[in-house]
Amino acid sequence: MVKNIFYAQSGGVTAVINASACGVIESARTSRKIGKVFAGKNGILGALREELIDTSRETRSAIAALRYTPAGAFGSCRYKLKSIDENRAEYERLIDVFRAHNIGYFFYNGGGDSQDTAHKVSQLSETMEYPITCIGIPKTVDNDLPLTDCSPGFGSVAKYVAVSTREAGLDVASMAESSTKIFVLEVMGRHAGWIASAAGLAKEEKNDPPHIILFPEIAFDTVRFLARVKATVNKAGYCVIVASEGAQYADGTFVAGTGQKDAFGHTQLGGVAPTLVEMIRESHGYKCHWAVADYLQRSARHIASATDVEQAYAMGRAAVEFALAGKNAVMPTIVRSRTKSYRWSVGEAALSNVANVEKKLPRNYISPDGFGITLRCRQYLAPLITGEDYPPYKNGMPQYARLKNVLVKKKLKGFAD
Amino acid sequence: MVKNIFYAQSGGVTAVINASACGVIESARTSRKIGKVFAGKNGILGALREELIDTSRETRSAIAALRYTPAGAFGSCRYKLKSIDENRAEYERLIDVFRAHNIGYFFYNGGGDSQDTAHKVSQLSETMEYPITCIGIPKTVDNDLPLTDCSPGFGSVAKYVAVSTREAGLDVASMAESSTKIFVLEVMGRHAGWIASAAGLAKEEKNDPPHIILFPEIAFDTVRFLARVKATVNKAGYCVIVASEGAQYADGTFVAGTGQKDAFGHTQLGGVAPTLVEMIRESHGYKCHWAVADYLQRSARHIASATDVEQAYAMGRAAVEFALAGKNAVMPTIVRSRTKSYRWSVGEAALSNVANVEKKLPRNYISPDGFGITLRCRQYLAPLITGEDYPPYKNGMPQYARLKNVLVKKKLKGFAD
Repeated sequence: MVKNIFYAQSGGVTAVINASACGVIESARTSRKIGKVFAGKNGILGALREELIDTSRETRSAIAALRYTPAGAFGSCRYKLKSIDENRAEYERLIDVFRAHNIGYFFYNGGGDSQDTAHKVSQLSETMEYPITCIGIPKTVDNDLPLTDCSPGFGSVAKYVAVSTREAGLDVASMAESSTKIFVLEVMGRHAGWIASAAGLAKEEKNDPPHIILFPEIAFDTVRFLARVKATVNKAGYCVIVASEGAQYADGTFVAGTGQKDAFGHTQLGGVAPTLVEMIRESHGYKCHWAVADYLQRSARHIASATDVEQAYAMGRAAVEFALAGKNAVMPTIVRSRTKSYRWSVGEAALSNVANVEKKLPRNYISPDGFGITLRCRQYLAPLITGEDYPPYKNGMPQYARLKNVLVKKKLKGFAD
Repeated sequence: MVKNIFYAQSGGVTAVINASACGVIESARTSRKIGKVFAGKNGILGALREELIDTSRETRSAIAALRYTPAGAFGSCRYKLKSIDENRAEYERLIDVFRAHNIGYFFYNGGGDSQDTAHKVSQLSETMEYPITCIGIPKTVDNDLPLTDCSPGFGSVAKYVAVSTREAGLDVASMAESSTKIFVLEVMGRHAGWIASAAGLAKEEKNDPPHIILFPEIAFDTVRFLARVKATVNKAGYCVIVASEGAQYADGTFVAGTGQKDAFGHTQLGGVAPTLVEMIRESHGYKCHWAVADYLQRSARHIASATDVEQAYAMGRAAVEFALAGKNAVMPTIVRSRTKSYRWSVGEAALSNVANVEKKLPRNYISPDGFGITLRCRQYLAPLITGEDYPPYKNGMPQYARLKNVLVKKKLKGFAD
């Protein structure tokens, strides 16, 4: 019997997560063995609340437009399922909804926490005797998923950060003689410095910006940092610093933090840039400017990496192919060939090996002094930002998809999530 | 006798000020009546210090690349000449340098303060009996120059802000159900809300972001603001706010300020976004995110407006044409035709009328409630962001001009600026 797919977007969205959705939906539409693709309204919450978006109601061109539309077109969520032992009712509810809507495939598009959720759901078929094929689709700007060469979403944020650093670097260089000498750009990356590392791609020659990159992996040392800032200004005339939001002291305290926690218990960060600027002003008296890219960096579809878009789409397509091939509890991955020029193919990893593992920036990707990237890191990063993939524009503005997002008629009673 | 041009970039740089430089140099190179173009290293400081960059040493392709290179390729400065009465020595020095290098044309590329400097220099020929043709070239992201329909640099920052608001707005909409409900983007605009107003172009339908724009022209009222935030979340599910760095209370106090002042005595701003977020968290408890675009917005050549680039180039070219036509103490302007479709031509304004006049956002460009823009404003703004003008890319990165910036041999003794 032909079964439907439940597809959901989870966690922080990216410039290309909709490209994965596009890959899922376009591939599913070509297969007679698959029914409809129902998308969860606001991720897994859509399943719990029986709020299923019927993607078959969208036109072919609307689905095609997902490929170049940033953020989560069906809504995402930060909601972590407890273990089956802790909250069996939630899992029973999922099964009720899946059964009511003839869902045989569960596709969960997210990062480490989300792959953990996907893994738990995959255990349902055994523990609760409901046949469900469960495929994780990788997504995270943080690039911290294990077992895949990179994660869709990362290449585009990396390109944004590299391009922005180059551009702002030229700006500071122009102003430094009589005005701003310091520019600090704060970028995302809670525990891993992948995004910050991408700023290093802006540098071509020795004195080019960025002059200092701060990684969560390297303990922040105020004295060393301030000394390096001064030495850089003396040598280059100005200093461009790119700081990960997760920059932290040796004891694990964040250089700056808001104190708020999200649904997964992670501290919500922000404010490293102004904190660093305050230190520099007090110590050296330089005129400083700072920027916090925040959501701008991960939604910047206008400067997406063509490689990233292609990979995100391929991961969605692979999820459908995996499901049709009878695979379960797996996630498609990106495998880099050991060739001189960059080539990649689709691989796979077991969800049990992906869930809750964070891939940090290797120490040999960070320069010995801890303030920059190595050639090895550059060689890893460079292909991921390659190619431009511009959205269509009308009247000077990018034309992103607007879906109808028609909900499937509910068949069950309500559920208090 | 054929005279040389002295060209300098002044004040905060933009994504397209080099396009004006390109217009000056390419036009000057085609004229037999003009010698060389000497660019001031770091603006007017280059004249005072006799640090003149010989642009004739640059290849044709390097000069052509200026058209798509952001920031100030020759260096800019924040340095305000005093009046002739207050510091006659500076003016005497300028004349010495001009005379030593056979400079007959002074082109000053900047905003209101810089046009004031240009105006003062233009008075030299009368008061100090040195013949100098003085042309201002308009440039400011703030769009606050009078007598021109718009200022080169503004269209591109407007496009950046509109595109970024649309993209980040999609991101917040995706997350709002279970996570971030508030996003605040802080943009430039010290005293005028032009840049903030451009965010309004992201809105197509009633509940689209941005939901609230804060202008320096409208007194900030905490109670009204917080009430509107809450009402927006209740209605749309989330709230995207774009705040001008110059947002201020009725008594003129800035909502946030760093206290630092620049060479012109202006307070250096920054930090409105985190201040607003703090208010919202305390009052409503929503999860918030914020971004400060700072230099990213004005250097973002990768998303420049084609209209802006064209106008910036045309202003540079017009400066040469004006000089050859014997005009003095004038600035080329952009004149909008009174036609239904957008058309513009080059006009002119006397520097005496431009200097130190700030054009604010007209009240009828701001919606009656003070939180958005009117149709009239939209009609003004829309053509200015029209068209994309992408720089060339190599390995995923924009390839911006690297000039040799060879200095002309000094002929005079040093001068303490």
